[in-house]
Amino acid sequence: VAAVQIASPAIAQSAPEIKWRLASSFPKSLDTIYGAAETVANRVAAATDGKFQIRVFAAGEIVPGFQVLDAVQNATVEIGHSASYYFVGKDPTFAFDTAVPFGLNARQQNAWMYYGGGLELMREFFKDYSIYQIPCGNTGAQMGGWFRKEIKTVEDLNGLKFRVGGFAGKVLAKLGVVPQQIPGGDIYPALEKGTIDAAEWVGPYDDEKLGFNKVAQFYYYPGWWEGGPQLSVYVNQAQWDSLPKTYQAILEAACGEANGLMLAKYDAQNMPALRRLVQGGTKLKPFSKEVMEAAYKAAFEVYDETASSNPKFKKVYDAWKPFREEQYLWFRVAENSFDNFVYAKSAQKS
Amino acid sequence: VAAVQIASPAIAQSAPEIKWRLASSFPKSLDTIYGAAETVANRVAAATDGKFQIRVFAAGEIVPGFQVLDAVQNATVEIGHSASYYFVGKDPTFAFDTAVPFGLNARQQNAWMYYGGGLELMREFFKDYSIYQIPCGNTGAQMGGWFRKEIKTVEDLNGLKFRVGGFAGKVLAKLGVVPQQIPGGDIYPALEKGTIDAAEWVGPYDDEKLGFNKVAQFYYYPGWWEGGPQLSVYVNQAQWDSLPKTYQAILEAACGEANGLMLAKYDAQNMPALRRLVQGGTKLKPFSKEVMEAAYKAAFEVYDETASSNPKFKKVYDAWKPFREEQYLWFRVAENSFDNFVYAKSAQKS
Repeated sequence: VAAVQIASPAIAQSAPEIKWRLASSFPKSLDTIYGAAETVANRVAAATDGKFQIRVFAAGEIVPGFQVLDAVQNATVEIGHSASYYFVGKDPTFAFDTAVPFGLNARQQNAWMYYGGGLELMREFFKDYSIYQIPCGNTGAQMGGWFRKEIKTVEDLNGLKFRVGGFAGKVLAKLGVVPQQIPGGDIYPALEKGTIDAAEWVGPYDDEKLGFNKVAQFYYYPGWWEGGPQLSVYVNQAQWDSLPKTYQAILEAACGEANGLMLAKYDAQNMPALRRLVQGGTKLKPFSKEVMEAAYKAAFEVYDETASSNPKFKKVYDAWKPFREEQYLWFRVAENSFDNFVYAKSAQKS
Repeated sequence: VAAVQIASPAIAQSAPEIKWRLASSFPKSLDTIYGAAETVANRVAAATDGKFQIRVFAAGEIVPGFQVLDAVQNATVEIGHSASYYFVGKDPTFAFDTAVPFGLNARQQNAWMYYGGGLELMREFFKDYSIYQIPCGNTGAQMGGWFRKEIKTVEDLNGLKFRVGGFAGKVLAKLGVVPQQIPGGDIYPALEKGTIDAAEWVGPYDDEKLGFNKVAQFYYYPGWWEGGPQLSVYVNQAQWDSLPKTYQAILEAACGEANGLMLAKYDAQNMPALRRLVQGGTKLKPFSKEVMEAAYKAAFEVYDETASSNPKFKKVYDAWKPFREEQYLWFRVAENSFDNFVYAKSAQKS
């Protein structure tokens, strides 16, 4: 009996019952980007026999989509799921945790985060917000969004009220755009009412669900401001520190798994959605070379300006920029030559 | 006291102490591909407070690299980590679990596995081997390998004794190659002694470790026979069934996490290795259009021939082929146009 009495408290301590509330920045209708948090919650519950439960709340249920960072920092909720570039108004350095224009694609973002020093830099940055950050999801290269009129030249962007996520707003402002930050669930009514002229969200699968094709005809690509945007889980640092090591390991593994699963889900589901959209009258258009070149120039001007006035941004940018160049060099060898060959062969047939 | 007596056995049952031996097909020197199994083992141990322990053994320690499937099927070990295309001699259907020539890149493989029906098809196939399969790692598009002489035309392939993994051997045989299956750790001596004329393994980071640059000068790309080869964990079905549900969930999450981590590690480390190789005299060469076109034609001939005689292969191929076309169509829109633009801009500067 003595042995049992000693063993029981030890077991209770190592596998306590914990219930957390997760605030997502995304609407429940999006099974991809909102669904990643549920993927994590389900895995964590299964791995702990239901002892560690994370209940996922959509944007607006506990806090609005753009207040998820504050809610975790203030311990209104224990955990959140968001795109860090929503918070560039607090500090543009947040953008590196998601995507910056003409930056890394999804694989390159993972390479930077996990083995290129990115995670260490971002976790150091997030300490100022009392948050432990874990990469959790990626959309892949996004579409450039929905426009009511054609965008052929840089002049066509002048005065355009465009809903666009993250740091891209600063780049587009240089080209005359009036950028608008609007959470995913609120974009459609703004576009419908004409409060905005154009809007981007993610890609065909999500955009079809949000109904943008009903109120705008031209669908541009690529979303050059987010070639591989990462989503992140935020854990309040005190809550993280209070977790048993086993639960920490399970939560990190579940986020690592969900990081790949979200991307795979988008990749599997985007093409059928795009086909439906085009069949329904959507006009698919590439951004013109003029627009792309002007945006590229503007982007690196913004980076240099920001780095010159923000030491935190500069620290990350100075590490990120050469890593990006190395990634591009490598991907141009085997990966891009494989992709370009098979896509060209496939296009010959179709 | 009564409550404690009831609770203790229940807890003991739900978190038993389990020790498994994992047979890897790879040599310990490769921290990427061998290391993925250690990543899984470490995560599983951390998530179970050391109660579920997986000890990783390199190729040759318990069984040779190419006997990992048999060893798991026969319960010599509980679990293995391998590339399923090593076992195309048993059944060419295994190739879809890793890569087939001119097939899917790493992201497309994940899309197929997790959300395109691939995992269901492969798990059904693996049932005949009493194995529960879990995707666990990807190398990304590989290099085309190391050759002692230049390969300019299809005639240059005639009679070439080439170490090449998986189903590619059947395609290359159509072009005159004499394909050789040799485990990773045994390639260098074969190439050094001249038993083989050429060899491919993975990419710069691994290939440099294995020393191929010391015995062959020409380094070709891309490895068109493996645009996104997946590694897999094999669990003996009876052992899988005997695991507590919590341990099953933890093992699957750890493999899902390691699936992305291996790819990120290769992506982060290949370019510095490639630079060292080229600085050391390695001559980097793209396969000629003639070779690529002939290989493409031969590949689809092999698929059609194999499907006509093997119903298991046909079942998977008939599902895989249209999924591949859909993926290519989608990737050509946002992803490939983003990649090609930023790579071209980067190349302008360098």
